[in-house]
Formats: sequence, C-alpha cells, structure tokens
Amino acid sequence: MSPEKKRAPPPTQPFPDVLPSRSVPPVSPVVVLAPDTFKGSLTASEACASMAGGLRRVWPQVEVRLCPMADGGEGTLEVIFAGAADAGSRVVRQVRAVRAAGGHSTAAAYGIVEDSDGRSGRSAIVEVAQIVGITDRGTMAIPVESRSTQGVGELLRALLDEGLRRFQIALGGTSTNEGGAGMLEALGARLLDSSGAAVPPLPSALDRIERVDLTALDPRLAECELVLLSDVDNPLCGPCGTTLTFGPQKGVTDADLAKLDVALARYADRVESALGRRVAESPGAGAAGGLGFALLALGGTLRSGAEFVADLVGLDAALQGAHWLIAGEGRSDAQTLRGKAPLVAARRARAAGVPATLLSGALDAAALPELGRHFDGCFAIAAGPTTLAASIANAAALLADGAEQLARLWDAARD
Amino acid sequence: MSPEKKRAPPPTQPFPDVLPSRSVPPVSPVVVLAPDTFKGSLTASEACASMAGGLRRVWPQVEVRLCPMADGGEGTLEVIFAGAADAGSRVVRQVRAVRAAGGHSTAAAYGIVEDSDGRSGRSAIVEVAQIVGITDRGTMAIPVESRSTQGVGELLRALLDEGLRRFQIALGGTSTNEGGAGMLEALGARLLDSSGAAVPPLPSALDRIERVDLTALDPRLAECELVLLSDVDNPLCGPCGTTLTFGPQKGVTDADLAKLDVALARYADRVESALGRRVAESPGAGAAGGLGFALLALGGTLRSGAEFVADLVGLDAALQGAHWLIAGEGRSDAQTLRGKAPLVAARRARAAGVPATLLSGALDAAALPELGRHFDGCFAIAAGPTTLAASIANAAALLADGAEQLARLWDAARD
Repeated sequence: MSPEKKRAPPPTQPFPDVLPSRSVPPVSPVVVLAPDTFKGSLTASEACASMAGGLRRVWPQVEVRLCPMADGGEGTLEVIFAGAADAGSRVVRQVRAVRAAGGHSTAAAYGIVEDSDGRSGRSAIVEVAQIVGITDRGTMAIPVESRSTQGVGELLRALLDEGLRRFQIALGGTSTNEGGAGMLEALGARLLDSSGAAVPPLPSALDRIERVDLTALDPRLAECELVLLSDVDNPLCGPCGTTLTFGPQKGVTDADLAKLDVALARYADRVESALGRRVAESPGAGAAGGLGFALLALGGTLRSGAEFVADLVGLDAALQGAHWLIAGEGRSDAQTLRGKAPLVAARRARAAGVPATLLSGALDAAALPELGRHFDGCFAIAAGPTTLAASIANAAALLADGAEQLARLWDAARD
Repeated sequence: MSPEKKRAPPPTQPFPDVLPSRSVPPVSPVVVLAPDTFKGSLTASEACASMAGGLRRVWPQVEVRLCPMADGGEGTLEVIFAGAADAGSRVVRQVRAVRAAGGHSTAAAYGIVEDSDGRSGRSAIVEVAQIVGITDRGTMAIPVESRSTQGVGELLRALLDEGLRRFQIALGGTSTNEGGAGMLEALGARLLDSSGAAVPPLPSALDRIERVDLTALDPRLAECELVLLSDVDNPLCGPCGTTLTFGPQKGVTDADLAKLDVALARYADRVESALGRRVAESPGAGAAGGLGFALLALGGTLRSGAEFVADLVGLDAALQGAHWLIAGEGRSDAQTLRGKAPLVAARRARAAGVPATLLSGALDAAALPELGRHFDGCFAIAAGPTTLAASIANAAALLADGAEQLARLWDAARD
C-alpha cells in the first residue's frame, strides 16, 4: 500500500497533522537477532530461528543476521561454535575425557580459536559447565560436599601440554562449591593440614587446610593469559558470596551454609598467602562456586561473558547497516541490568545507531522502568494469563508470534 | 537525538543498508485511544487513561484523542455519556425507576440525544443491562425462571409518553431468558393460555402460551424507529440460540435447557403469528435472552453496537489527521473477529489510512493469525507468566506499561 493511500487526508482543524508525511518504500529492514538462551525451553540459536520465522511472516525477504548470545554460563560454548561459524571466525571443536565433579569420567567439549586479532598463536575456550555442570545427573547424585573441580585442572594441564597459553574460561552453571580447590590441586598445588598431610580438595575438608604448598604448581601457568568469562560479580565469601548466594541451589543445606562459608574463607586465606595475591573480595571470585577465586588467584582477569561472546559472534559487524536489533532471554530482571547478554546487545546496538527491542519470556515489573531506558520497547511473549510451564512449553511459537507482531508495528510506524 | 546521530554509518559491504535514511523530526504522533472495557478490571474510559499515561512517559506532549468504545453490552451507556461529551454530541443523562428483572424497583439510567444528523427530533439510548443486568445482585438472588424484562417495556412506554419515537437499545449483559415476553406484556401484549387466561411473562410459563393478543399493544410503537445495538448475532432458538448459548451463565440448569428452548420456540411462533412477521431465525433474535427477538418482532433493526458507539464518540473525526490508533479489550479471540469494538475501531482506522494496534488483556492463540491481519501488531499486557486474577488486579499498570513500550518501539521504527 502506498503512503498516499494509507495516510490520512491533509490536516484540517481541529486536528492538525503534526507529523510530516514521508515517502518511504515498503522495504523490509535488516534485523539483527541477538537473543540469549530461554532457559529451560530454547537455546539461543533456537530462539533466533523462532524470531526469524515470525519476522518472515511479515517480511518474506527480510535479511536477518543471527547473533545468538550467551554470557558465560552453560551453553556458552555451543553458542560460540554456532555464532563464530556464522561470523567467519575459526573455532575448532575438541573433546577430551576428564573427571566430572562427581569423580566419574566425562567427555568435555572445548574450543580452539585461531586468533584473528593480530596476536600470534591460538587460544582455548573452556566451558566449566562441560566438566562440573549442574545439569550432570551423575554428579548431582552425590552430595555437594564430595564434588570437586579437579577435572577443570586436568583439562587446563592437557591444554598446556598442547602448547596453549591463552584461555577463555566460561564460568557459571556449576555444581561445585569448593573455591576451585580441585583445579588448583590438579595443577600441582598441595593442600596440607597442620600435620603436613594432604587434604582432599573437597568442601568437607577445606576447614582442615593449614597451608598451601605451591612448589609443584605447574610453572607454565606463569606464562598464561587466563580470562574468566562470567556474568557473576559476587565475591568469594560473606552475605553476597558464592555459598550463601548459589550454595542452596547446589545442595548445600541451610545448616551447612555458614560453616562452608567460613571454611572457604580459611582456604582462600591460605591460597592468597601462598600466591601473594589477595583476590577473594574481587568481583567474580564467587563465580562457579569459587572457581572464579582460584582463577583470579592464578592471575586471571574477569571479563563479561556476554561482551566476549558478542565479539566472537561478530555482533558489531552484524550491526553495520542494520536497522533493528531484537534481543531476548527467558526472564529479564535486575540481573539483566547488571550486564547480561541482552543489555550488552542493546548497548552495542545503540553505539552503532541501531534501535534495540527486547522480547523476553518475562519482564520483571520492578526492573521494567530501567529496562525501558535501555531498549526501544520491552515486550514479553506471554499472550495473556498463563503458567510458567505453558510458557516454557510454547516458547518457540510464542516467540515467533511476538516477533511477527513487533514487525507489524514496525511497519505501521514507518508507513 | 538527531537521526544523524542515531542511524548507522553509511552502508558498507557486505551489509548494504537497504532502507533509505530519513529526516523526520522527533515529534510525537497524534494517537487515537479506542479501547473497549477490560471486563472485571477497567472501564473503557479507565483503559483510555492508562494508555494515555503510558504514552506520556515517552511523549510528554503527545496529543491523545480518547474514544472509549463499547459494543452494546453493560457499560455502553457510560461510554456514550463520556465519549459523546468529548466529541461534542449532546447526550443528556436521565434516570427513571422501573422494575428490575427480579421485580424490585431499580433506577435505570438512559440517554436522550439531541440529533445532529439532520433529522429532526430527539432519540433515546436505552441500555437494558441498566434494568435487567446480570450484575444486579437483587435479581441474581432469584431463579432465572422468575426473571422478566417488564421493566424494559415500562421504560419504553414512559419514553413514548414523553414523545420519543426513536430508540437505540443496547442489548447484552442481561440476566433474563424469556424472549422479551415481559417487555411485550408491559407494552400491552397479552399472553393467553388455551382457556384464554393470562399467562405471566416468565420462562416457567412460556410453554402454556396458546395465543398472543395484541389488541392493546401500544399503537405508538408503529410510529417508532427501534434500533437494536448488539454484538450478538445468534438466533432465538436451537443449538446457537440464546438458551443453549447464554442460558447456563444466567442460571438455566442443564436439565432445563432443552425444555426452555422449546418453550421459547412455541412463544415465538405465537408472537410471530400475531404480528405477521417471522424473525426468530434472524441474527440478533437471541440477544439479551431473546429480548432481541421481541424487539425485531416489533419492527426493530439490528445494528452493530460498536459501530453505533464509534459514530457517537466521533471516532472517524478523531482519526482525521491522526497517526496511530490503539484498541484493546479484556480478551481478544474469535468473538473479536465477529465485529466487536476493537475490530470496528481497526476497520475505521484503516479506512482513514491510520495504522491500528491491539493491546489486550489476553490474545487467543487460535485467533491471533486472523487478528494479525486486522491490526498492525497485536499485543497482550501480560509481562510474563501470571494468573488471571493478578492480570485483572494489575490491569491499569500493565496497560500503561504496554502502551509505553509500544510508543518506544514506534519511535525507534520511525527514527
């Protein structure tokens, strides 16, 4: 329909037409789709596909640029494999058998990146949830007091053997709560009690640690660049620490919370003394049950997982010449505002002069006013009163419907 | 923010900018707000106020034109009073005591319109729910078999006494199921059994009617124009008739449904024989528990309540020079598509070249594809999984939030 046919007649009193009429051909826009995972229902790639399907109902020829997002938690690696391939980056998928948190052997995927940023060499992308993930049933069958991150240390050691010195380590989605003691032990650290005997790297034994002996710590770690990818900025201990914040969902009982928090503080103090570096209070030390602490203690630096993924999937390049970005996630709330994937996508879109709209499974009412300042419209996929279970079960269809309706309004506003 | 600052850099391969850039000043649009009532939570006027509040968060100076809608059911009269005043029409509110469906006296409001369409004289707007409404607790305390529309006939008679000959009668939202027998009796018809004795105009007695005597029917009715306002096109009897469709919600028991349907058919046949007019099968005969039948039998004509209200509140004039219409209702489903208020609003908007967006309490998934063809975007106010009760309780805030987000997207699409 031409603008002339659709637009109202020229202004007449008392209803003046305050907007100038425009002559824009009805061409479909270039849309960047950058959803995070819809937890429990859709991977980020599946969310992209649903959104794209909805847009195509309105614009059959729409150019969509798929930038599935992640923020360092479980699934980050799959998004990187899918997204990096689309963006032309070279990330090779590898798999290695290591010890899971429960002690059994598990096949952990990781990625090897051929660097393209001018620096020489390759880097490894490790997702710790592949090794000590909270969705691993074998691990969850044993108590949290017996779970360890030794497998993470094993994988890093194997990668050091392969000559790798640069690591991006996606934290989040872990079942462990032992401050990364297992990883440190697997890398050569020795945890000793007051009699000088070795203490196992488990939550149940942390309170017996008197000294940490780093004599045998893998010396190659000193040559390494360790980047922690996380959306968690909690410290290791205290009210906002890993145990009190994330312990209960991993199986730490209410009765054990305070005791474990104190044990972790004691362990951290010994590690810091041995390494000569205080990091327990640093943001991200509380990520991944305190594995963040151990990696920071080894000289690692914290980076936003979402920023890293955005770079790897080529979000900025996709935004060049695009007209619209649609972000999304399972639930948008105060956590989103602390820098989760949709917020990173919105910031980059705005920096590129591209409007960004949020289409999520749910919008927290308290966070909406602030979310509204970051997005050009925040929408939920719910079509009316519904249960969480129904919303999850129908997420793919609801997301497609939602994207379709956004496109209809977009067209109307431009006509 | 100027378009130059917000828009992406000039196109570069491989992502050509397919849309021409535009230079539109960031002026807020003129928005027509035309919601129906959100049943159980907001009147149409309240819905207008919520929507306007949301829009003003984005566009403090936005020009909104309030066109609260209704479709002939309960609340139609209030919408007319509010909307007609805004549109400059002269509708005088009157109140008269008549018999409610349960027999007790009730104060029924009605409107007197000073005609402005070139025809002489005044007309009356009657909302039958004011007299025999299903939300009248006094009436609902007695069984449906004892409820009657006599009060409607009383009011019409009183208005005839005042010289009125043109009536718009809003049907819908009634507690009665007696085919308008009570109204006919109050207007002078006599319902007689086989012995010639009078039969009361109640569902429980309809099966005894052998003959309808119209000798004493008010002769002034022959001079009248009767317009039935309804969004119901059901016939009087049968599977889609008033009893089987609406009887249960009025208290007709399953055991009585078929019996009452047959009794209504018998009564209708006698009325039709007496008047020489067959209307039981006509669309709208099943409106208001069959009161529609009685009014059609008296020579009335059916009109879409929403079309009438749209005229009275001046929707077409409001659309002149407007840029956007937002419609809404408690729940949008297949009934909406049969011509309820939001659909009428959308049709008129499109005819005026103005895009129309739907913002409802809930969107029926099955109806969404078809709704999508009538609206430039269909949205629900739910911000995520929620109960109907919470949605109703928070409707005002959710509706404001929804309108705000629509406005943000509107702005983004135009930038």
